[in-house]
Amino acid sequence: MQFELSKEFLERFREAINSREEDFIKKSLEGIKIADISALLEEFESHETKYVLDLLGQEVTAEIINNLEEDTRGKFLKAFDSGEIAEVIRELDSDDAVDIMNELQVKEREEVISLLDDKEKEKHIVELLRYEEDVAGGLMAKELVKANLNWTIVRTIEEIRRQAEKVEKIYSVYVVDNNDILLGRVSLKKIILANDTTKIKDIYDKNIISVETYRAEDEVAAIMRKYDLEAVPVVNVQGKLVGRITVDDILDVMQEMAEEERLLMTGITEDVEEDDSIWMLTRARLPWLVIGVFGGLLSAEFMGLFEKDIVEGAWIALFLPLIQATGGNVGIQSSSIVVQSLANPSAFEDGLWKRLFKVFLIALLNAVFLSIIVYISTFIMGFERTHGLIVSLALFSVVILSSLVGTITPLTLDKIGFNPALASGPFITTLNDIMGLGIYFYTIHVFVNALG
Amino acid sequence: MQFELSKEFLERFREAINSREEDFIKKSLEGIKIADISALLEEFESHETKYVLDLLGQEVTAEIINNLEEDTRGKFLKAFDSGEIAEVIRELDSDDAVDIMNELQVKEREEVISLLDDKEKEKHIVELLRYEEDVAGGLMAKELVKANLNWTIVRTIEEIRRQAEKVEKIYSVYVVDNNDILLGRVSLKKIILANDTTKIKDIYDKNIISVETYRAEDEVAAIMRKYDLEAVPVVNVQGKLVGRITVDDILDVMQEMAEEERLLMTGITEDVEEDDSIWMLTRARLPWLVIGVFGGLLSAEFMGLFEKDIVEGAWIALFLPLIQATGGNVGIQSSSIVVQSLANPSAFEDGLWKRLFKVFLIALLNAVFLSIIVYISTFIMGFERTHGLIVSLALFSVVILSSLVGTITPLTLDKIGFNPALASGPFITTLNDIMGLGIYFYTIHVFVNALG
Repeated sequence: MQFELSKEFLERFREAINSREEDFIKKSLEGIKIADISALLEEFESHETKYVLDLLGQEVTAEIINNLEEDTRGKFLKAFDSGEIAEVIRELDSDDAVDIMNELQVKEREEVISLLDDKEKEKHIVELLRYEEDVAGGLMAKELVKANLNWTIVRTIEEIRRQAEKVEKIYSVYVVDNNDILLGRVSLKKIILANDTTKIKDIYDKNIISVETYRAEDEVAAIMRKYDLEAVPVVNVQGKLVGRITVDDILDVMQEMAEEERLLMTGITEDVEEDDSIWMLTRARLPWLVIGVFGGLLSAEFMGLFEKDIVEGAWIALFLPLIQATGGNVGIQSSSIVVQSLANPSAFEDGLWKRLFKVFLIALLNAVFLSIIVYISTFIMGFERTHGLIVSLALFSVVILSSLVGTITPLTLDKIGFNPALASGPFITTLNDIMGLGIYFYTIHVFVNALG
Repeated sequence: MQFELSKEFLERFREAINSREEDFIKKSLEGIKIADISALLEEFESHETKYVLDLLGQEVTAEIINNLEEDTRGKFLKAFDSGEIAEVIRELDSDDAVDIMNELQVKEREEVISLLDDKEKEKHIVELLRYEEDVAGGLMAKELVKANLNWTIVRTIEEIRRQAEKVEKIYSVYVVDNNDILLGRVSLKKIILANDTTKIKDIYDKNIISVETYRAEDEVAAIMRKYDLEAVPVVNVQGKLVGRITVDDILDVMQEMAEEERLLMTGITEDVEEDDSIWMLTRARLPWLVIGVFGGLLSAEFMGLFEKDIVEGAWIALFLPLIQATGGNVGIQSSSIVVQSLANPSAFEDGLWKRLFKVFLIALLNAVFLSIIVYISTFIMGFERTHGLIVSLALFSVVILSSLVGTITPLTLDKIGFNPALASGPFITTLNDIMGLGIYFYTIHVFVNALG
């Protein structure tokens, strides 16, 4: 039952815009969901989008602007003056309104606020602008329905009616005392099934989950997932109900978190997509590639110290890829397991030393197994036994060390406030590569001296 | 307002179980959310968990079992006979019940079904068992509230009352015709605000999004995210309303998708977590490490063909890490951009050739830039100009080819039904490494011949 955007329709629509076919445009967008209209308009230039929106009325325009991707919207809003933006802001829920306000220059923002002529909205927006975008306070909307403990059902339904236009999806009515302290909730189902004269305090659910304004967005997502919530009330430090986060925003947060992790793991420095410009895509990819290249040059410089060894024993060079690839694979596996357990924290996490000891045991098992494979294989491949032994021993050490580094790095990054997924990215991989080389040549030296 | 599980409480609770302190156990779990009790019980052995659950009553027991992690639950249910499992199944929503049924042996499953003595639940479960777990049919629950087009509000509220116990969260009432064909929805808010005698057909919303039973779970997640839905009705091919998927299940789907991608990208072959056993963690990690090791050995064998070159020119060995690391980084960046755009498909995707041409242009820009850096650096580092030139040219080719391979591989994997994130994993990385070596030595040969 979804509206399917086709290339044919896109072309027909483009034609309609060019030839200003108002009727066709209005008719073909009738009954189409906002999200689909937004996806369609993403394909057009700002002035074309503006032409279409002017035909659709203020409320739809506001919702569509709210739905556009951030970079399209940024470009698009440049064609708007403060008065027009204020009209858009007036139509939106406070959380969405603030997201747009956050994209404006400070001066423009002030202008828009002064033009709102809706005292309540103005108050809401000024309050929400105080919060960082990635904490509960920055995700919440001020629109919600609350009821006093002492109200009857009839009084509560009146309140729902009063708020109906402002709060699109109600889910629950939050129950507060005279000081706005959050006490619990009543589901709409309960309200429908209760008698008109029943008092809220006799039917409300005290066992309610709420989050504080300062909670990070990933914590909020984890809480909503854990307790299967479709909305969660937000309280300030005094326990006062100050807003509500709905699950649709959390779906977006989870998507963004997955994307951020993917970018970090692959060393892409900007939030790019395949359809961004060639220049943007290149710019996002080059920084880490350049750092990787300098890592490679550093490796060359380092190995230059051992040039004599390589000339005397070319077998040394042949096993470089083996050592480096294995070190890389072990390191990235170790760090991804830590990243996963940081994303799903358990209440009973082991301490650091117990964790490292376990990692060490796993690494030991892997290292023994892989070294034996390599020793036997080099024998079969006809390499000298000492050379096979040296390679196996170097591999053994690389597996152990890469495991430990792969475990400690994400834990450290997390502790100092970085995304631990960075540890699976090219920066750490480059460091690991250089460390692997060091171990390899160190082992060679120790053994070539020992074995003559 | 969350219940904080502390190690101290865990220890106290363990003591209480050992000394059979029924009162303490019951009292300390009073008012605690199911999800928290489940997390607590994850820390205990099956017989201890069973002792606690027997104190808590059937409904809570069923919810807790539903909330346990899959592997804990598997172990735990082994201590249950079919009759006890049937009691658990009776208490759960059909979607959760079927998840548990899917974990049972066929024979046990048949027994449980025969013991259900709830005809409706039995019908629901048998129907849901037909669907794969990762499509809409496998995610949906049969519990929902529907209303006939011709009903009044009073009649609809009666239906809500009738279903109230079975359907915990209603969100919307789905509107159907006499043949159960889905026509639209009415929100609970509208029902509260409407007159008792209003007919459903006069207030319902026709513009409704639904999904077919065969839709993949990631498609369902994308639809719910796009249209900000907290629940989506599921229809069969005739358009009949057959179930409903709620957003709490979609939050889990998104979390699982992110985890699956992480495991694929790092070559971990089982769904392990940091607190799994050392043996499980080793077993999950070894397969790809072994394949990586064989890739390394293959590289050694391949380079053996050029041993003479290496002895004559040790500089060849020094730049191996540079070539391989850069190839790896470029490949993984390219594939992750494709994975991202496959995860967020746009209606107006460019065709394959247009995409590849764009990738080629980006690769060209990167390649030119990186080669120049390398050429200048090798000059500064004091390498011979021909050697610097050869390394730069090899790097140039590696960047271009890795980009193309990194783009084509995930697209191909996706087309033949694999998760495209596999392309960022160790298998492709190993192949890329070997390809990089081939290009490097080919370039060396061409140039050493050409330049003497």
